[in-house]
Amino acid sequence: MNNRPIGIFDSGVGGLTVLKEVAELLPDENILYLGDTARVPYGIRSPETVIRYSFECTEFLLRQNIKLLVVACNTVSAISLHKIREAVSIPVIGVIEPGAAAAVNATKNKRIGIIGTEATIKSSSYVKAIKALDKDIEVSGLPCPLFVPLVEEGWTEGTIARLIAEKYLKDITDREVDTLVLGCTHYPLLKGVIQGVMNDVSLVDSAIETAKAVKYILDGQGSRDILEDRGQGKLKFYVTDSPDKFISVGERFLQQKIKDIEKIEL
Amino acid sequence: MNNRPIGIFDSGVGGLTVLKEVAELLPDENILYLGDTARVPYGIRSPETVIRYSFECTEFLLRQNIKLLVVACNTVSAISLHKIREAVSIPVIGVIEPGAAAAVNATKNKRIGIIGTEATIKSSSYVKAIKALDKDIEVSGLPCPLFVPLVEEGWTEGTIARLIAEKYLKDITDREVDTLVLGCTHYPLLKGVIQGVMNDVSLVDSAIETAKAVKYILDGQGSRDILEDRGQGKLKFYVTDSPDKFISVGERFLQQKIKDIEKIEL
Repeated sequence: MNNRPIGIFDSGVGGLTVLKEVAELLPDENILYLGDTARVPYGIRSPETVIRYSFECTEFLLRQNIKLLVVACNTVSAISLHKIREAVSIPVIGVIEPGAAAAVNATKNKRIGIIGTEATIKSSSYVKAIKALDKDIEVSGLPCPLFVPLVEEGWTEGTIARLIAEKYLKDITDREVDTLVLGCTHYPLLKGVIQGVMNDVSLVDSAIETAKAVKYILDGQGSRDILEDRGQGKLKFYVTDSPDKFISVGERFLQQKIKDIEKIEL
Repeated sequence: MNNRPIGIFDSGVGGLTVLKEVAELLPDENILYLGDTARVPYGIRSPETVIRYSFECTEFLLRQNIKLLVVACNTVSAISLHKIREAVSIPVIGVIEPGAAAAVNATKNKRIGIIGTEATIKSSSYVKAIKALDKDIEVSGLPCPLFVPLVEEGWTEGTIARLIAEKYLKDITDREVDTLVLGCTHYPLLKGVIQGVMNDVSLVDSAIETAKAVKYILDGQGSRDILEDRGQGKLKFYVTDSPDKFISVGERFLQQKIKDIEKIEL
């Protein structure tokens, strides 16, 4: 039992899909979410800059006395997760390893596809994480740059979303993968459209897999928060730029109201 | 006669539409283009940061001995054009005033639409520039956030581009504008699709209008470059991040090969 909060950070709103799954799986936990919205997107920055920003986010959340840190950002998970792990004494969970492990478990024909931003695909971080588990698996990565703006615009169903998904995913359909990893925190909002295009393929939702990893670690440490009022865990949000757009886009991601939000400086 | 180069800068590739028009209108001129690709996009940064970055770009180009500066970036044109003008002794041309003036000349029913990024529309910079010329004109601004990634992906024609344009432009069609300003340097690549959706509306291409303003100023100063080999003006490119993506996307913007390119630090 440990009623300290879980901390989650991302460069923007994307990590809210991870928060949503953690809050659903562990409804008693208090969770702090930090979106570094003044400096989004991290994917276009140099590794040195990404490392510096991610340590600033980490240090802010540590000062709020968190018991576990979720790095809900693919770029940071790829570039500086190991450095953060070395530097802090609490458990640190990224979004790449849980998705990679779930994909390795799911595939039968040993052909896995990964979709993500250009930066994530270029980093080969999913390929490395999958090959570390089973070097015989064939991994095909495909960047889908229009998916993030499509999700942020709220156009997650209908003809336009379907045609864009068909156009991108044709390449990966041709490679006969039986498992596809949604390797970007925005993509779970397009799950319906993507599944419609890839009927027979198992979709791996990194946000869900990351939430399972959080539960696994807290259970293993006996540090889950068991409140008297079940399901009453509180959510608190921090952003580094004006909260307006974060709230309007974020409420679509979370499918609930964002109430307790504060602008901070890092 | 003055064979010093013209300098053009933008946060990324967008300003290449302006370079293309300047080079077509003034084929004898040598032109330097600086894309601050390490720090793109400027539209999400604070005004203080945009001012600092734009001065760094300006100072770099001044050191190359340019005779005229084109600020081919809507964000910088909106936020720091007047500050740059105060600070330097050569003519400085932005992308907003020429487009606004052309729209005021073109409209018959005094209803003008502006499309651009969220940052440009939110800044109201076109509205202010148009109202300064004719306060009775009604101006409707509409952000089209998917247009930039659509252009960078190269999907500038076909069904997806048409459906996205129809969806965005419906709002502005309802307002019965007779003139529409393409208020983002990426949008000229979607001109065909946009004109298809807005049949009877005059499109104002800020890139073309900016090029006309450059010619007008150089003619007025008698400082146009008249080379012996006509049409042999040279183009030279500087970027602040790896040139690879700039070249592949940029060649679509320019419709010619990008040969002479150098990575610099600002």
